[in-house]
Amino acid sequence: MPRPRQTTVSRTGELDLLRRIRARAARRSVRDVALGIGDDCALLRVRPGEAVAVTTDLSIAGRHFRLDWHPAASVGHRTLARGLSDLAAMGARPLAAFLSLGLPRELTLPPRRNAKSWSERFYDGLLALASTYNVPLAGGDLSESPVALADIVLIGAVPDGKALLRSGARPGDILYVTGALGGAAAGLDRLNALAAQQKPIPTRPVRIPRGDAAQLATHLYPEPRLAVGSWLRRRGAASAAIDLSDGISTDLHHICEESGVRAELNADSLPIAPGATVEQALHGGEDYELLFAARPSTRLPRKIAGIPITAVGRIVRRRTSEPPVLLHTSTGAHPLAPQGWQHFSGR
Amino acid sequence: MPRPRQTTVSRTGELDLLRRIRARAARRSVRDVALGIGDDCALLRVRPGEAVAVTTDLSIAGRHFRLDWHPAASVGHRTLARGLSDLAAMGARPLAAFLSLGLPRELTLPPRRNAKSWSERFYDGLLALASTYNVPLAGGDLSESPVALADIVLIGAVPDGKALLRSGARPGDILYVTGALGGAAAGLDRLNALAAQQKPIPTRPVRIPRGDAAQLATHLYPEPRLAVGSWLRRRGAASAAIDLSDGISTDLHHICEESGVRAELNADSLPIAPGATVEQALHGGEDYELLFAARPSTRLPRKIAGIPITAVGRIVRRRTSEPPVLLHTSTGAHPLAPQGWQHFSGR
Repeated sequence: MPRPRQTTVSRTGELDLLRRIRARAARRSVRDVALGIGDDCALLRVRPGEAVAVTTDLSIAGRHFRLDWHPAASVGHRTLARGLSDLAAMGARPLAAFLSLGLPRELTLPPRRNAKSWSERFYDGLLALASTYNVPLAGGDLSESPVALADIVLIGAVPDGKALLRSGARPGDILYVTGALGGAAAGLDRLNALAAQQKPIPTRPVRIPRGDAAQLATHLYPEPRLAVGSWLRRRGAASAAIDLSDGISTDLHHICEESGVRAELNADSLPIAPGATVEQALHGGEDYELLFAARPSTRLPRKIAGIPITAVGRIVRRRTSEPPVLLHTSTGAHPLAPQGWQHFSGR
Repeated sequence: MPRPRQTTVSRTGELDLLRRIRARAARRSVRDVALGIGDDCALLRVRPGEAVAVTTDLSIAGRHFRLDWHPAASVGHRTLARGLSDLAAMGARPLAAFLSLGLPRELTLPPRRNAKSWSERFYDGLLALASTYNVPLAGGDLSESPVALADIVLIGAVPDGKALLRSGARPGDILYVTGALGGAAAGLDRLNALAAQQKPIPTRPVRIPRGDAAQLATHLYPEPRLAVGSWLRRRGAASAAIDLSDGISTDLHHICEESGVRAELNADSLPIAPGATVEQALHGGEDYELLFAARPSTRLPRKIAGIPITAVGRIVRRRTSEPPVLLHTSTGAHPLAPQGWQHFSGR
C-alpha cells in the first residue's frame, strides 16, 4: 500500500504526491471496494459464485514507453489499458486497479509554477480511463526510482467456470478479431518519424500536429475491449480468447499452444487499420483488440458492443510435422512465426 | 501476466527465465488457484462470505535492497515477506502471490557454468518463503530493466467485516507488539559495517561470517506474523492492527491518524531485540512485527502462535493541543515524531 518512504531529499514531494493520489482515488466504500487506500490492504467484494481474476503488467521507461516521445497522460492511459485488456480477454468485469509507481524525483515536481508535474499528468490519463470504465484505483505503492516505471494490477470478477480461456479452441473453430489491426504500430512509426523531425528534449514528449492526432490515437490511447469480452462470456459465444498485446502472430501462437491445436490465418481477411501495413497488422502489438475462437455453428453479429467483428481464419488439428500457424496469402500458405512487438529495444 | 518481450538482445534469456518460473510456479488448480500462470489472468477462488484483500509492495535496487549488500535469496525472501506482512496485519489468509520483476540482463544469466543466476537465487529465496506459508505464485510479469526491481502483489481472503483495520483503536485500548523491535535495523547496521570491511564488488553481496548470521537474520529473512494476525482476527481480540514495516514511531502514527486518537508509548516496556538500541526499536523499520490495540478487558496470552506479546502503551483521546504520540521515558514524556525507516537514501 502507499506508504511514505522518508528521505529529506524526497519526503515532501512524495508525501504531497501521496496526498494528491489519495484525494483522487477510492478511499472508502465504492461499489466493489469495501476498503480503499489507507490501510495495510484494500478489501474488495465479489458476488457469490464469482472467481477473482488477477493480472499484473509492468511498464518501464525506455522499454514500454519513452519520456521523450509519449505524453504523460498517454503513459498513464496505456498503463491501465494493458491491465483492463487482460480482464477483457477473460470476459471479467473490473473490480479495482492497484498501481505501483517508481519515479525519478523530478517527475513528481511541477516544471514551473502552476504547471502540472509529469506524475499528475500521468494520473490524469490513468484516472480518465478508469472513470470511463468505472474502475476505482484502490491502492498501490510509490517509490523514488532512477527509472520511471509503473506496475498495474487489475482485479476482476467472473462467474466461476465461465471465464474465456486461451485453452478452449478446438479444430473447426473459426477465428475472429475485433476492430482493426496494426493501428498502434503504424501510430508508433509516425511518432518515431515526428520525433526525428523535432529537437529532442529528454523529458518533453513529441509535439503532435493536429492532423496526426487521429492516426496516433490507437497507439497513445488504446481502448480495452471490455464490453466485447463481457458479451462473449455472457453468451458463451467464444471457445477461447486472448487480447492482442503482442501482435496476432505471437498471440495466436499462445492460443495454439494452450489449446493444443494449429491455426490458419487468411491474409486477405485481416482488418487492417488505416495507414497500417500487413506486416504491422500481423506483428504489431498493443492494438489491444481481442482474438477469439468460436464454434462454426455459432452465429455472431457483424458488430459486438459497437465494435466490428471479422473472421480471419480457423483452428485445425495439431500435427507435429506442421508449423503451429499457417498464413494463407495470394502466393500460397506460409508458416507464420511469432514476431510480436519489440517495444523499444530493437529487433 | 508473464509474457515474453522479444528482443534479440534478451529474448533467449527472458524466455528461459520465464520457462523456469512457470515450471516452478502454480500453473493449474492448486488449492485456491483455479487457473495459474499461462492465461491473460489468473483465477482465484474465495469462500462465500469472504472479502478479497489486496496489497502491492515495490522494491527497487539501491532503495529497498542493494545488489552489493544483500544475497539474492534474501531479496526474494524480503520481497514476499513485505506483502505477506500486510496480509498478516489484516488477519487475512494468503490465496496467491503475483510478482512483476524488472531485471538488467546480466542478472538473468549464470555468472559461470553450473552456477545459478541472480534471478534464480532470488526465486529460491522467494519460493522457499512461499512454500513455508503455502502461498502459490500464480502470475506476474517480467521485463528487462536498467535497474533491478520487484513489485509483489499478495491476494488474501478474510471473512467480510472481520478484517483487522488501522481505524478501530479507541481511547483506553492497550497497545501490544509481537516479538522484538529494532532487530532488522541493527542487522542492517551490521551489514553496513561488514560491507565497509570488505572490498566492494558491484553485484556480489557482502560475505557474512558465520558468527553474524543470527544477528542478520531479522534483516535478511524476516518472518511475517501471519499466524498471529489470523489468531487475533479469529478471536476478535484486536481493535486495530498494522505491521511494523516503517518503524513503530511511524506506524503508530498511522493507527492514530486512521483511528482519530492519540497514543502513549512506554520506552521501558519496548521489547528491544538483542544488539539493538532504543532508537532502532522506535524508528527502525522492516521488523515486520505486528502492532495492535486491544480493549483493556481483553485478556491476551503471553505468546500467540509461539510469538511473545508485549504491552507497550495505550490509546488516549485525541486533543488537538497534544502531539499524536507521546513517549514516556525516565526523564518524562516527550512527543515522538514519525522517523520511520529511510532505506538507503539517507535521512
